[in-house]
Amino acid sequence: VKIAIDAMGGDFGPAVTLDGVATVHQKHRNVEFMIYGRESSVLPVMKITGLCTSSRVTFFDCSEVVEMDDKPSGALRKKKHSSMRKAVDSVGAKEAHACVSAGNTGALMGMSRFVLKRLPNINRPAICGTMPTLSKTTKLLDLGGNIDCSSADLFDFSVMGSVLSEYTENRSNPSIGLLNIGEEEMKGNEQIKCTADLLEKSPLNYVGYVEGDDIFKGVVDVIVCDGFVGNVALKASEGAAKMLASIAKEEFNRNAVSKTFGLLCTPIFRKLKGRVDPRNYNGASILGLNGTVVKSHGSADKISFAKAVEVALQEARQKIPEKIGVILSDSNHVKREEKE
Amino acid sequence: VKIAIDAMGGDFGPAVTLDGVATVHQKHRNVEFMIYGRESSVLPVMKITGLCTSSRVTFFDCSEVVEMDDKPSGALRKKKHSSMRKAVDSVGAKEAHACVSAGNTGALMGMSRFVLKRLPNINRPAICGTMPTLSKTTKLLDLGGNIDCSSADLFDFSVMGSVLSEYTENRSNPSIGLLNIGEEEMKGNEQIKCTADLLEKSPLNYVGYVEGDDIFKGVVDVIVCDGFVGNVALKASEGAAKMLASIAKEEFNRNAVSKTFGLLCTPIFRKLKGRVDPRNYNGASILGLNGTVVKSHGSADKISFAKAVEVALQEARQKIPEKIGVILSDSNHVKREEKE
Repeated sequence: VKIAIDAMGGDFGPAVTLDGVATVHQKHRNVEFMIYGRESSVLPVMKITGLCTSSRVTFFDCSEVVEMDDKPSGALRKKKHSSMRKAVDSVGAKEAHACVSAGNTGALMGMSRFVLKRLPNINRPAICGTMPTLSKTTKLLDLGGNIDCSSADLFDFSVMGSVLSEYTENRSNPSIGLLNIGEEEMKGNEQIKCTADLLEKSPLNYVGYVEGDDIFKGVVDVIVCDGFVGNVALKASEGAAKMLASIAKEEFNRNAVSKTFGLLCTPIFRKLKGRVDPRNYNGASILGLNGTVVKSHGSADKISFAKAVEVALQEARQKIPEKIGVILSDSNHVKREEKE
Repeated sequence: VKIAIDAMGGDFGPAVTLDGVATVHQKHRNVEFMIYGRESSVLPVMKITGLCTSSRVTFFDCSEVVEMDDKPSGALRKKKHSSMRKAVDSVGAKEAHACVSAGNTGALMGMSRFVLKRLPNINRPAICGTMPTLSKTTKLLDLGGNIDCSSADLFDFSVMGSVLSEYTENRSNPSIGLLNIGEEEMKGNEQIKCTADLLEKSPLNYVGYVEGDDIFKGVVDVIVCDGFVGNVALKASEGAAKMLASIAKEEFNRNAVSKTFGLLCTPIFRKLKGRVDPRNYNGASILGLNGTVVKSHGSADKISFAKAVEVALQEARQKIPEKIGVILSDSNHVKREEKE
């Protein structure tokens, strides 16, 4: 398997992305990497990480970099020689099986749509993330790719999330919940109710409406919502968790006694953190395209970026885009009729 | 000040609501209470709590109860003799200065709108809650009253949230953020961009877009969003916090050593919990009506319900509806022109 890496993306650039790649490179001995970036920034780090001596790593010099504040449309038009674009291009040209970037989300989405094209019958690609819960994980989509979604779009997201959950998490017949503001049938807007109708008639394992707090209960395998709601839900829960961690730190640092207790509890806190550490859940999949693209969090560190690369690796191995394509064409007629 | 109480609302009914009232009754010696409920359920608890001997408490027997699964429209049409309706009626008749219910949110919203009527120039009332942050609290609205909101509605929410923050939290010129999925100007849908335009031209202290994680950072005094997004943000963050608490409990209960450490840390955990305990933030205000209505969480316990009663008390004392009305009529012409 070959994975293309946008080495320039993210808040820390090659120092973090290549460190992450080095981890995966060592762990998975049959994976090849295509590294895209600016030579002056990338080569020194490739030397330090030892990647430059590996026969499984190829470097491609790129003259441009997509910045975090670039407009997606501008990046798409003007930065054709950027590391991000070249990494996506390599997937489009079937030279790589997947690509990973920690860069500008809008630009990555735009370039991926433009280069890879949407799967037949998919109107809008969606960004799908993995959420920790008390038990198993939950896939949540869309996380911000699409602000306004029709019920047909939300239905497509359900299909894509179901395939991803089945083949990357080994869930058979994944259960799907539709994010709403109440579990009662009468709740929600027309678009949500309409999506529920489509899902009920479909062969998918649709279980009904779920609420915001269900995201972390592990009650369903996949939760579907529009990108605005998904993005706010993700960030609000991240914010709540960070606030709790900060307050806990403050309370344990209050005096000598509490500091001592805090030190004693370090191994317990470490386990706790390991179970919910966002780094372990990094790597959101852009689904609905003819190719695998994974978006890493911009502030990813080495561990976090390595996780995103592993997500791409798994999706490439499972040929997720092809599997989504098959499902959509298989039962396509039934679903499309209902969707009209 | 007189506060009307729907004693029958919530998961536990009078056992909790009246216990909460008893706490506030003792703390605030100049407040009177009008208790609405079914005699057979209420009187025994009034005896236990000692409320029945107080000259500041009046009980009103109600033949009906609004159930949690009642449809709002049905409750509004058919349950005119319910404790919820009678409590709202007492505010409408100016017999009480505010009312509190832990019952069916939709029914409470519907009855409040019907009985109290909207303030002039307010198209939709909104539900406003208080969120804990690292420093001060943040007001978040709408929390689920309105699924689809126009930019004029979101603008009205900003005015109402600003007044509530100023007079109940003593913030001068409260800062207002508009919840979006990015801080860049180009992000968001048309309705959000349009609201931003209105806010920029207004005398309100609008600071720009905020994201989901900003809810818990205390970066602004008021955060405005539509009711679907607000409800999901609230519940998702509650869910994340509950998951973290459960995982912490699991890790501390893992073995004898960790259990001992957990016991030693009990005072620290208690302080931590106190700072983020949702019970301390209970009591969401239904704003935009000719009267003060406060919604308590349905699963409220005594402490939690008492907090909601205190929220109602504070709003009644500050005459929040009147103050919102004055602001809206004062600068009304300017805003309306821009809103058209």
